[in-house]
Amino acid sequence: MSTPDYGRAFSLMREAAGEAWGAYTRHAFVEGLKDGSLPRESFLHYLRQDYVFLIHFSRAWALAVVKSETHEEMLAAVATVNALVAEEMQLHVGICEAAGIPQEDLFATPERPENLAYTRFVLEAGYSGDLLDLLAALAPCVMGYGEIGARLGAEKSSETYADWIGTYAGEGFQGDCAAVGQLLDSALERRLGKDYANSPRFATLCDKFRKATELEVSFWQMGLTP
Amino acid sequence: MSTPDYGRAFSLMREAAGEAWGAYTRHAFVEGLKDGSLPRESFLHYLRQDYVFLIHFSRAWALAVVKSETHEEMLAAVATVNALVAEEMQLHVGICEAAGIPQEDLFATPERPENLAYTRFVLEAGYSGDLLDLLAALAPCVMGYGEIGARLGAEKSSETYADWIGTYAGEGFQGDCAAVGQLLDSALERRLGKDYANSPRFATLCDKFRKATELEVSFWQMGLTP
Amino acid sequence: MSTPDYGRAFSLMREAAGEAWGAYTRHAFVEGLKDGSLPRESFLHYLRQDYVFLIHFSRAWALAVVKSETHEEMLAAVATVNALVAEEMQLHVGICEAAGIPQEDLFATPERPENLAYTRFVLEAGYSGDLLDLLAALAPCVMGYGEIGARLGAEKSSETYADWIGTYAGEGFQGDCAAVGQLLDSALERRLGKDYANSPRFATLCDKFRKATELEVSFWQMGLTP
Amino acid sequence: MSTPDYGRAFSLMREAAGEAWGAYTRHAFVEGLKDGSLPRESFLHYLRQDYVFLIHFSRAWALAVVKSETHEEMLAAVATVNALVAEEMQLHVGICEAAGIPQEDLFATPERPENLAYTRFVLEAGYSGDLLDLLAALAPCVMGYGEIGARLGAEKSSETYADWIGTYAGEGFQGDCAAVGQLLDSALERRLGKDYANSPRFATLCDKFRKATELEVSFWQMGLTP
Repeated sequence: MSTPDYGRAFSLMREAAGEAWGAYTRHAFVEGLKDGSLPRESFLHYLRQDYVFLIHFSRAWALAVVKSETHEEMLAAVATVNALVAEEMQLHVGICEAAGIPQEDLFATPERPENLAYTRFVLEAGYSGDLLDLLAALAPCVMGYGEIGARLGAEKSSETYADWIGTYAGEGFQGDCAAVGQLLDSALERRLGKDYANSPRFATLCDKFRKATELEVSFWQMGLTP
Repeated sequence: MSTPDYGRAFSLMREAAGEAWGAYTRHAFVEGLKDGSLPRESFLHYLRQDYVFLIHFSRAWALAVVKSETHEEMLAAVATVNALVAEEMQLHVGICEAAGIPQEDLFATPERPENLAYTRFVLEAGYSGDLLDLLAALAPCVMGYGEIGARLGAEKSSETYADWIGTYAGEGFQGDCAAVGQLLDSALERRLGKDYANSPRFATLCDKFRKATELEVSFWQMGLTP
Repeated sequence: MSTPDYGRAFSLMREAAGEAWGAYTRHAFVEGLKDGSLPRESFLHYLRQDYVFLIHFSRAWALAVVKSETHEEMLAAVATVNALVAEEMQLHVGICEAAGIPQEDLFATPERPENLAYTRFVLEAGYSGDLLDLLAALAPCVMGYGEIGARLGAEKSSETYADWIGTYAGEGFQGDCAAVGQLLDSALERRLGKDYANSPRFATLCDKFRKATELEVSFWQMGLTP
Repeated sequence: MSTPDYGRAFSLMREAAGEAWGAYTRHAFVEGLKDGSLPRESFLHYLRQDYVFLIHFSRAWALAVVKSETHEEMLAAVATVNALVAEEMQLHVGICEAAGIPQEDLFATPERPENLAYTRFVLEAGYSGDLLDLLAALAPCVMGYGEIGARLGAEKSSETYADWIGTYAGEGFQGDCAAVGQLLDSALERRLGKDYANSPRFATLCDKFRKATELEVSFWQMGLTP
């Protein structure tokens, strides 16, 4: 199958990330979701850490609202904050409760260093830079999950993690990825022009994208070691 | 009539603001809305500036999401961002269009210095401080409009500005004020304890509240001079 | 006399600021310093407000250190913070004491709205944007005073304010202006390339520069009304 | 020997950090510096990473200038930025050059994840919180090195790393630690009163201090694996 189209800037950044992108989107954890071989314990451990991750990831998307320069940018960022805070976080609460993890336990999950490293990197990139720096650091999580979801939706050989796969393969999340891709493209063109890929700035943004991709690899690795 | 109850912290900060609070909530602009004597030109000028204000005020509320420390704080701040970006800003677009101001004109409104001073003060207080500093600077706008709306809803002697008054006198907005008051109370107790009013920190927060109140006075004054 | 050369980017931004630049650098307050006609009371009032201004201006330059991406950028910004905090602020303390304003009085100066508007605008531009946004908002104060100092050093017809003029006309401050101009040029080239002036980004930066210039005009105006 | 006295707040936070403090200040890396058993390769690897660390640590101290509320706080933070940027970073350049690592190599050191995690945590704590949050996250590095330096100065059984030990055992650095301890104490009293240790806020600050301490442990561990 071909990879989904999330826009031009994402496509360029993904390519510039080199092998890190494959190390992330085809990590052993991901392949374990695909064929159902991932131990349940790892999955639940991952879900709990991902809940903590989502708290800070939502804060980072809220920072994108603060750093917006147009009404369209604000609306796009607000929509993502809502999807994260009001929906995805609740989804995790639900899955965890169904798996016997009470909400209090979930909320009390101690943050693992690989988790902390990733979210603080994204937030700091956003605070220290402008909207472009922040979006470049946010993109790998959004679009990487989109790409993983789309591939696993087509290739999965087990129903064990079908719910999780369905969430990210589904129209809703794929639409979110397309919207974020569009936000990234338009934010770049607005600030750096149509020829943004030739601005020195773009290389710095690709560095931030690759660094965030590497931190995704560490996150999956952490998922394998409950 | 008695003033609405928006919580303990607001009540203390309001009192600490001294005469500035009355200068704000009983400004000539407000009295002109009440008896319908405010010139239409002033009102439309104010609405346009208020639209620009809401852009930055929404950004400041998004910053409150970033600076939240609990899930409840995040949810409360996200709800306010939504109410502002998705509803109140659209409301202004609608009123302005009905008054013959096309959306392009509204979006191109040059920001007046009194407007800029206020929003940058709030944003900077939020960036440089924590959630408490930010909420103290945000509160006068929210609760002041709530108090003005409630009073004018009861006392108005003209229907000229009844729509505007109705928006802020209405259950929806009054509920928002109560929710923000509760957020302020709980954020204070969480960080400074039940006895927060005796913390030196509280005096600094009252200063920020009063400064924001004074900037509201300037904003009304600006409204009178299109 | 010709204006001093503070680099290419400053020269372009200065031109883009249009009439605002002249309104700032040839304001009645400035002309009053030149021919000695400025009332002493205005001068002292201005000095006290300028002391409050310098506190926040130093904070903004410290933010430039935080937002630096290279060792050279950090060193340049640190040097400016030092010049401001360790030298210029002490200078004001000295001048004020010599004029009979004790240090406690100086420290207790209530901040005027025109003052607050300016510094919060600069700080917010820096927090919300990257180093370029911050430098564009910082430049008018530094280079404007350099230009004023250089001109008044050559044209002054009275010795009343010769000390003040000498400070900004002197080699030390003129060197600071050249250094900031160089920092601005190199920061732009590093991020946007040699052709930075054709990036859409540059227009936004010119807007921030012009807005800060307008806020300088208000600051002088405030100086005339103790 | 007794541990040096860096003030009351540090002493309380150190105690609240529990075993993490000992894991940090008596880490195998530290003991290897003491008896000279630390492989040279590890030491140079550590020095290179520490150079990258100092860049971001200096940025974080510059943020402390931005977040200061008094002239004294500003002066204390500016002094630390200077000591770091103008002195300690140059010291590393010198030691590395003497060890055959050219400056270009040093500047091009790829940042290790344990390094990134620590500095981004500190910066984000500072951006999202106020000066207290930032100081609590900055303190373990400053005072921990002070405590390590003082102990190794007294206990070292080898001259191999005597220069390094001398730097942190010396009067200069010990004076810096005392000054930072005083800044922490006075900043806490100013905001939370003499009884700051009983404010709920203090517990949150102790959490940040302990988290930074744990990240120091990871940093030493990283040093052992070039």
